[in-house]
Amino acid sequence: MPHAPLRDAFVLPEGLIYLNGNSLGALPRAARERMQQVTVAEWGQQLVAAWNTAGWVDLPLRLGDKIGQLIGAAPGQTLVCDSTSINIFKLLHAALQRRPERQLVLLEDTAFPTDNYIAEGLRGLRSNLVLQRLPAAQIPSALGPEVAAVLLSHVNYRTGARVDLPRLQQAATAEQIPVVWDLAHSAGAFPLQLDAWGVEFAVGCGYKFFNGGPGAPAFAYVAHAAQSRLQPILSGWFGHARPFAFEANYAPASGIGRLQVGTPPILSMSALDAAIDVLQGGDLADLWQRSCRLFEQMLATLEADPIFAQCTLLTPRRAEERGSQLSITHPQAWAICRALAAEGVIGDYREPGILRFGFAPAYVAEADVVTAAERLLRILRERRWDKPEYQHRPKVT
Amino acid sequence: MPHAPLRDAFVLPEGLIYLNGNSLGALPRAARERMQQVTVAEWGQQLVAAWNTAGWVDLPLRLGDKIGQLIGAAPGQTLVCDSTSINIFKLLHAALQRRPERQLVLLEDTAFPTDNYIAEGLRGLRSNLVLQRLPAAQIPSALGPEVAAVLLSHVNYRTGARVDLPRLQQAATAEQIPVVWDLAHSAGAFPLQLDAWGVEFAVGCGYKFFNGGPGAPAFAYVAHAAQSRLQPILSGWFGHARPFAFEANYAPASGIGRLQVGTPPILSMSALDAAIDVLQGGDLADLWQRSCRLFEQMLATLEADPIFAQCTLLTPRRAEERGSQLSITHPQAWAICRALAAEGVIGDYREPGILRFGFAPAYVAEADVVTAAERLLRILRERRWDKPEYQHRPKVT
Repeated sequence: MPHAPLRDAFVLPEGLIYLNGNSLGALPRAARERMQQVTVAEWGQQLVAAWNTAGWVDLPLRLGDKIGQLIGAAPGQTLVCDSTSINIFKLLHAALQRRPERQLVLLEDTAFPTDNYIAEGLRGLRSNLVLQRLPAAQIPSALGPEVAAVLLSHVNYRTGARVDLPRLQQAATAEQIPVVWDLAHSAGAFPLQLDAWGVEFAVGCGYKFFNGGPGAPAFAYVAHAAQSRLQPILSGWFGHARPFAFEANYAPASGIGRLQVGTPPILSMSALDAAIDVLQGGDLADLWQRSCRLFEQMLATLEADPIFAQCTLLTPRRAEERGSQLSITHPQAWAICRALAAEGVIGDYREPGILRFGFAPAYVAEADVVTAAERLLRILRERRWDKPEYQHRPKVT
Repeated sequence: MPHAPLRDAFVLPEGLIYLNGNSLGALPRAARERMQQVTVAEWGQQLVAAWNTAGWVDLPLRLGDKIGQLIGAAPGQTLVCDSTSINIFKLLHAALQRRPERQLVLLEDTAFPTDNYIAEGLRGLRSNLVLQRLPAAQIPSALGPEVAAVLLSHVNYRTGARVDLPRLQQAATAEQIPVVWDLAHSAGAFPLQLDAWGVEFAVGCGYKFFNGGPGAPAFAYVAHAAQSRLQPILSGWFGHARPFAFEANYAPASGIGRLQVGTPPILSMSALDAAIDVLQGGDLADLWQRSCRLFEQMLATLEADPIFAQCTLLTPRRAEERGSQLSITHPQAWAICRALAAEGVIGDYREPGILRFGFAPAYVAEADVVTAAERLLRILRERRWDKPEYQHRPKVT
């Protein structure tokens, strides 16, 4: 594995080791060119006609189907639209329609905050909802006839720990409990088989492993069987059966398209479209194998040095139990993260006291993670984190 | 008025007369350059750090304040986020919290459909809501103690007719009825004074008169006095008081920022930012005066020919009663629209049987509207609309 297989498809600053593709994926060269295309040739020259001539109007569905290929979804079940947060709102609302007599929603205690925040907001709809937050490991045993829905991340953003999705989905289905999966840290990182696993509802992020650019639109997956019952709460004109008939009353589009709300942000969506093409040029199973070797190599380099005993590994060692990242804790995690950045290694800091390193195997090579590990060890050995500029923490506002 | 004042700031295809800036504004040169900047220099070179180094994290608020200057809003009341449809959902939800004992929502019968569709969706929250659709002219007399909220367009998308916003706002305020204004066809077209008019809630579009590009993010305005009571239903992490503290429970940001939901689409938002800078380089009062002259000149040219008696003018003649468009009906409106496009004049067709011509005075000149009128008259005189390719109407799906 001398070189990342898709490295040349990405723009990366000279000398930078970028282990934060799980937060914001790097810029694909094709996305740079697509932005020129969509701005200059489409918007600039075709103007409003480009909704048809450049295929903008169908982009949310076409791009959704491309993403479907990367997550094991047959066509017509994946849509690109809005943000992950808003898509969670839509799908958790839909899930809660299923069993209106049930009031309990199971959530993960350390889920990415927006998942839980959105669930809180849904109490504006159903004030009797009870939100219960549990460690992911306790959710299987909490499934019971009082549970209205589960909202759960496939891979935890802090630790990288992976839930056994097929098993939990099966158990929930047996109890007739709809599950909304947040795939932000799994889609694009390793192969998913949503159809085969019996998933009904899932959302995911466009700007992490899919490299769609800052704040890229998210995607939503609804299995065919669950679509016709889905009455959108965000019933906007782009999700109408006949949006350009300008009818007086709302009638949802026949399939996944009903999850559209307003006019799609074509510029941002086009960058994601180009980025997805790049990823489809690779092989997700192969990329995941490479990610595993990156994880093992980085961890082996770290653990070969006794100074690493200062850190605690948060991420499960077994490949099938984790996503594409390596997380550790250290009392000086914040300052270490700053020191690493100053030395050209970009990971990130997450509360509480967590250093995360994400592996985007499309563009991260083995040499990168070995160098990153060596610099981290040197920072620990030489206490290079102990400088005022690294210790300084801007107030979180 | 030989030349549109900001014409050189826009890219337009040679020879095209573009009278559809009320649907999709033309490409500002500065937006083309900004897309390069944000893609190559920011995303490509600064990567995740650009959230701070390039100011992405504050862009929704900064850009909101710039738009605030164009709509008469003091800082801290305007936010760029999501789509017009989703912002209507947020603000109509907020408005309905005000008087939970009231059930009647007044809507315009010929509003842009998404306004009414979104109101329908909100019945998912409050099943006892009653939606009453009236001609805009009847809304003032329908304001009474049973009205929970009003959702109304400032300028009607079909006819261009303008509601007397200050007067209706005052009457609604007297009855303690919150009004959500849809400014899609007024913001950027003529000067607004939301603060002075006592507006509480408003939404508007980024891609029409603001020229932000296809599906550009929308904006939401909430007057200071109404912000602290606003409990967001779409309670996402970007609207949290401390989003990067990753707290377990939702706590809304102190001001207008609480209307943010997910991670903002920076690429699309950056194009809008550049476009707003261009408009701020002009003078909206002056642009509106020019728009009025464009309207008058086009109408005078049309009415000077007896063949125009085939058409019916839908748009009010008096400047203070309309927006920046001229709408007519004709039994062959669809085919005429196609014939005009084939002859280099871009207007648009709207159901039922309406031809719309929008005036974006930043880049439309008097000669453009005179030529457009002459071509329209020739099409009528010579029945040039009577060709199979113009008569053909794709099925609306």
